[in-house]
Amino acid sequence: MNFEFHNPTRLIFGAGTLSRLGEVARKHGRKALIVTGGGSVKRNGTFDRAVASLKAAGIAFAECDGVEPNPRIATVRRGAWIAREEGCDVIIALGGGSTMDASKVMAAAFYYDGDPWDMIYHGQPDPHIPTRTLPIITVPTLAATGSEMNMEAVISNEETKEKSFVQAEGLYPRAALVDPELTMSVPKNQTAYGVCDLITHVTEGYFNGVDGTPIQDRFAEGVILTAMEWGPRAIADGNDLEARTQVQWASIVALNGWANAGTNGGYPVHMIEHTLSAYHDITHAAGLAVVNPFWMRFAAGHRAEKFVQFAERIFGLKAKGPKDLDCALQGIDRFEAFLKSIGCPTRLSELNIDDTLIMRYAQDTLRIIHDENGNLPGRPPMSKEDIVRVLQAAL
Amino acid sequence: MNFEFHNPTRLIFGAGTLSRLGEVARKHGRKALIVTGGGSVKRNGTFDRAVASLKAAGIAFAECDGVEPNPRIATVRRGAWIAREEGCDVIIALGGGSTMDASKVMAAAFYYDGDPWDMIYHGQPDPHIPTRTLPIITVPTLAATGSEMNMEAVISNEETKEKSFVQAEGLYPRAALVDPELTMSVPKNQTAYGVCDLITHVTEGYFNGVDGTPIQDRFAEGVILTAMEWGPRAIADGNDLEARTQVQWASIVALNGWANAGTNGGYPVHMIEHTLSAYHDITHAAGLAVVNPFWMRFAAGHRAEKFVQFAERIFGLKAKGPKDLDCALQGIDRFEAFLKSIGCPTRLSELNIDDTLIMRYAQDTLRIIHDENGNLPGRPPMSKEDIVRVLQAAL
Repeated sequence: MNFEFHNPTRLIFGAGTLSRLGEVARKHGRKALIVTGGGSVKRNGTFDRAVASLKAAGIAFAECDGVEPNPRIATVRRGAWIAREEGCDVIIALGGGSTMDASKVMAAAFYYDGDPWDMIYHGQPDPHIPTRTLPIITVPTLAATGSEMNMEAVISNEETKEKSFVQAEGLYPRAALVDPELTMSVPKNQTAYGVCDLITHVTEGYFNGVDGTPIQDRFAEGVILTAMEWGPRAIADGNDLEARTQVQWASIVALNGWANAGTNGGYPVHMIEHTLSAYHDITHAAGLAVVNPFWMRFAAGHRAEKFVQFAERIFGLKAKGPKDLDCALQGIDRFEAFLKSIGCPTRLSELNIDDTLIMRYAQDTLRIIHDENGNLPGRPPMSKEDIVRVLQAAL
Repeated sequence: MNFEFHNPTRLIFGAGTLSRLGEVARKHGRKALIVTGGGSVKRNGTFDRAVASLKAAGIAFAECDGVEPNPRIATVRRGAWIAREEGCDVIIALGGGSTMDASKVMAAAFYYDGDPWDMIYHGQPDPHIPTRTLPIITVPTLAATGSEMNMEAVISNEETKEKSFVQAEGLYPRAALVDPELTMSVPKNQTAYGVCDLITHVTEGYFNGVDGTPIQDRFAEGVILTAMEWGPRAIADGNDLEARTQVQWASIVALNGWANAGTNGGYPVHMIEHTLSAYHDITHAAGLAVVNPFWMRFAAGHRAEKFVQFAERIFGLKAKGPKDLDCALQGIDRFEAFLKSIGCPTRLSELNIDDTLIMRYAQDTLRIIHDENGNLPGRPPMSKEDIVRVLQAAL
């Protein structure tokens, strides 16, 4: 374990905190660009309550609405343009992961004269790392991505069919105002996808990270166990505020660095899924639900131990030994069954994806990211054939 | 769960990181006050290596040595005076918890014209909350306190026999440079006390916090399980770098807010122990080792459930039901036995403390902190008689 950790985002957590938006925003600016998604925040009154809080604090605002589920670089360009035209000095992301991710890159694009796509890592030799950004305040309306308290964003390029990420310290929101009440109107399927999303965030670091991280393992397991306990309750009754609270807290700590500090893992499942959702307009976490168990089965064949630990600690199975592959595979089957039980797809066919483009998914994934041997980083690194094999199994 | 969390300290973790001290310090100042404790860093070469790194980066320095195990306000005054006289613009704490705590308050006292004791909470109506501090860099040489990555400090007043704390955002170190190699020379008993210290940090929030914090529970349990697994290895072989690394990482996450965000718990065991070590020059964690199990037995009688969970998840015991007090008490006995097994005292007599001043310990504890009913905050709140009873049992 040799690592740096720094997360300066101020988290303001709890039911009812939306009313503090104006007070928080005033610390960072005078005119906000409010970024929103498909319009649910307008229909359910969240937008009006946010605006009322801003007005009471004397904060003016402009709007950028219509961020897509897989946010597009064109939308980022549009938002940055509005922020400049309107003279905004703070960005408020009011929505789900895509709204927050787009807002982060808008905040960086505000100060960048080139094309914001330069900042998104897509295999180019010299990506532009943003160093200066408008202050960002995140107000998540969905428990899933963890974007509210981290320095990552994922953006799609609809022209090149690429979907990839940017990571930079400047992308840390100044404040994350997290009000679980805002997630009560999220429908069952999106709630389930959020649970899958957050679990996949921790399984990536858990299975792909370095050896010898016992605390991070326990933290990751704690997030998974909590999500598996409270997720189904939030899905069963969207108005269960306690369940919404625990799921949202799980989604934050799944990806704010606490559970994977120093693990230094790759994100192979995410990278494969990103290619799928670059070609098909599927929900990110629906893609993860299909790919993750099949990736696990592939990886367990190379290194059963960690999957045995997963089977024992998450599902209470008893292994015959530390390398008991049967036990490892049973744990993965149980995990897949859990995803199915909460309503997630577990085969590509359920997403209307067939094998026509399967070679291209593998090629594109590797074009975006590969190690010095041309493989997808992770444990184990994956060749093009490995990716194809995993996807084929998942058809 | 309704809370704010903010921890902006940049953690630089790993064997060998001491060599980066100069590079890190340069981001914050040009002349450092290096604060040290009893001199072990000079004897074992750590001080010289730190100075070499500073010199290579062009950082001048002054020194404040001799911080006591229970750091005194007089030492804080002296350090702040040196920093002013020498024109220092950054403080480097090179030592254990007492050195780091004293350094934090020196950094605040640098900008405060009154007596720094005003900043330490001791029941005064209007404590001075420090808002401006010199930048602080912590370089722990002991795994115990977690002070390297939090905003707390505990200081003693040798004249009034008071020992208490200050908490302020300005006390967050700018950087924590954590090099587990520096702890390899820590003797067995101090290593054991460190393990006890870090475990007690999480048990306080775990047992005294609000209900409904399943993730924080799992995180706390993860820290305890890891400390119980790796602590004995670090004690058995001080040169086991892997064990030193895991124990140090555990000590950081035990008190940097990750394991107890939103739990909003009291610290009754700490408050009682502080009074003991204000009267008797005992190691803080040696006092905790005695008080904590007896406090647990007292608290379990009021609310067995959490202690049953502790017994089941930490020691693998099987309860007959969620309120099985026998199981709870068995878990506490096992915990006490663990502390004894690593060489911690478990009775006050081992610390040469008898019942002569027992009423005064209780009174002083309550003078420093009490709720609106005059009780020590915690679950349950403790009356003077409760404190006396716990200490009497621990004789």
